[in-house]
Amino acid sequence: MKFACQQQELSTAINLVSKAVSGKTTLPILSGIYFETKGDQLRLIGNDLNLSIETFMDANISEQGSVVIPARLLTELIKKLPNSSVEIDVSENNVITINCVDSSFKIVGLPGNEYPELPAIDDQNSFEIDKELFSNMIRQTSFAISQDESRPILTGALLEIENGKFNMVAIDGFRMAIKRANVKTALSNKAVVPGRTLNEINKIISQVDSKGDLKISFDDKQVLFTLDTLKVYSRLLAGEFINYTQILPSDFKSVAKVNSDQFLTCIDRSFLMARENKNVAIKLEIKDDLIKISSSSEMGSSMEKVSIELEGNDLEIGFNPKYLIDALKVIDSEDITLELINNVSPCIIKPIDHDNYTYLVLPCRISK
Amino acid sequence: MKFACQQQELSTAINLVSKAVSGKTTLPILSGIYFETKGDQLRLIGNDLNLSIETFMDANISEQGSVVIPARLLTELIKKLPNSSVEIDVSENNVITINCVDSSFKIVGLPGNEYPELPAIDDQNSFEIDKELFSNMIRQTSFAISQDESRPILTGALLEIENGKFNMVAIDGFRMAIKRANVKTALSNKAVVPGRTLNEINKIISQVDSKGDLKISFDDKQVLFTLDTLKVYSRLLAGEFINYTQILPSDFKSVAKVNSDQFLTCIDRSFLMARENKNVAIKLEIKDDLIKISSSSEMGSSMEKVSIELEGNDLEIGFNPKYLIDALKVIDSEDITLELINNVSPCIIKPIDHDNYTYLVLPCRISK
Repeated sequence: MKFACQQQELSTAINLVSKAVSGKTTLPILSGIYFETKGDQLRLIGNDLNLSIETFMDANISEQGSVVIPARLLTELIKKLPNSSVEIDVSENNVITINCVDSSFKIVGLPGNEYPELPAIDDQNSFEIDKELFSNMIRQTSFAISQDESRPILTGALLEIENGKFNMVAIDGFRMAIKRANVKTALSNKAVVPGRTLNEINKIISQVDSKGDLKISFDDKQVLFTLDTLKVYSRLLAGEFINYTQILPSDFKSVAKVNSDQFLTCIDRSFLMARENKNVAIKLEIKDDLIKISSSSEMGSSMEKVSIELEGNDLEIGFNPKYLIDALKVIDSEDITLELINNVSPCIIKPIDHDNYTYLVLPCRISK
Repeated sequence: MKFACQQQELSTAINLVSKAVSGKTTLPILSGIYFETKGDQLRLIGNDLNLSIETFMDANISEQGSVVIPARLLTELIKKLPNSSVEIDVSENNVITINCVDSSFKIVGLPGNEYPELPAIDDQNSFEIDKELFSNMIRQTSFAISQDESRPILTGALLEIENGKFNMVAIDGFRMAIKRANVKTALSNKAVVPGRTLNEINKIISQVDSKGDLKISFDDKQVLFTLDTLKVYSRLLAGEFINYTQILPSDFKSVAKVNSDQFLTCIDRSFLMARENKNVAIKLEIKDDLIKISSSSEMGSSMEKVSIELEGNDLEIGFNPKYLIDALKVIDSEDITLELINNVSPCIIKPIDHDNYTYLVLPCRISK
């Protein structure tokens, strides 16, 4: 195997696929990046058996072949080379020689034919979506994905497509984030995608300079994201996701309209005091045209006031401030509504400008 | 005690003094910031008994007094307040009430009269220096200060003033950095200032927007840095510093002139391969008009070539690449010289443009 390519392009391709290379794999071959010549293209793969990333790049190929090169060393080395032509020559015993201007490296690699095959995914069950919209859906929901491995299904987000409606839903047992979008597809499908996959997709979308839409394809166990020549394969989480529509409350007794930024900064400050405590809860007193936000700990106490427009009953209710902050940071709307029933039922936070986002958060007990 | 001031000014002052507040003090009062009214000024102090920082700021004072306020909570709280007037009112039992627009906080403080006194330092033994120059002296030497507590004197840098010459010297047993400057003073003094103090001074210089010079005052056990109304007190390290001029070699057999950036990038890449090894050494083959830089590990090997102008003998010598990188990063000169005797004697690195900087580094054994 022998090829030459530009340092900058090689570095970009390596950076993309290396996101799927785990630092702590028990299979030595998976700590490397797979290189393979395909006609006049170079194919690169990173794979940790849960997530695989494949990309193609142009190269001047003089000898076909494949090899696996240690990812960490290669990534840093190529990054530090000058932006010039890089020549890579792989010997029969998988020793990789890299030449660039006055630099020369030999790296001990592994045979390409021992690298695991990528899964095959049927292209039939697929739809396309604007990549920025998809990125935004991840940004507005992924923080509510559970980190608790004891309920594996909640460590992913539900991707639900039906009748041209596409919902992304994340639940961690204390709050739920739902983001809705319209897509042009007749596909009907439900799948739970691991949180890590979505976070990596989000990073990739921000890095790849592609004009086309993102294509998402499903089979029973896998999902494939395609962006130009870049492919991200991920296993799906097995099991039934929570029937989330059943959780959504109605018959609200109090609806408060509040400025999102003001509400966020006040809760942010209350959190400083509350976090000194074991019970991190803050208290919201919703009454007339004000929310009073208070917190206390052995260090002291805080009191904030925010103007609101209230319809319905007064209410005193406690929340974990972190759960409010997470949502308020990602809602793209000047004003939001808080929809409440009583101090033990879930609260709904929505942007006022549009109905494509719903955040549910459970209240918590406050000491009187 | 009662005063009002601007949020931004208060936040700036708190940030400065909090650098001397340790998070892990065993004396609760030292985890706070000392506030005291002084006429129409507010005095703030942070102190961890090794390092103390004092600053003054304008405030609208309506009741004189002093108090100690928990540093971490206060710093974050004031930072997150709107840029408006902040009113602070301290009760007899040291409860601090902070009001700003619609926010109100109560923080449990400690009595100001229990806060330790700042050391008195005689102003006689002092000199002034341009603060950017002093900052640069720290930048070019502090990385060579030892982190090893077993030889306490080397965890600081020597500040040596005589006949208008000011030298800063740091040694860690493997390398030595010497930076020289001219100052207008008749003072003759030697003192060893802890590395942490110098690093904090450097941060402060970059943050404080003052026009005047930095004043440095010594007594036997303390040093005081004064920048406008800001004062940084630090204990000095006790003991005799190494007689560093004795270590400086002469009678060089090989002197190589090399481009600093090129040399740095080559060593940087060699380091990537070498660090996979227990023996991190890289090999320099200095011959004719080239330095060949090579490294190897079980992952592979590297070879770099850099053009030089050599006077004297060819030489093969090994170095810890990290020690070369540290120095090459801070030398402000397009070209440098390497001055060598043989492969077991110290090597001197100097900028070619000026003679105010000398870096000494010990070679290390290389496997043949």
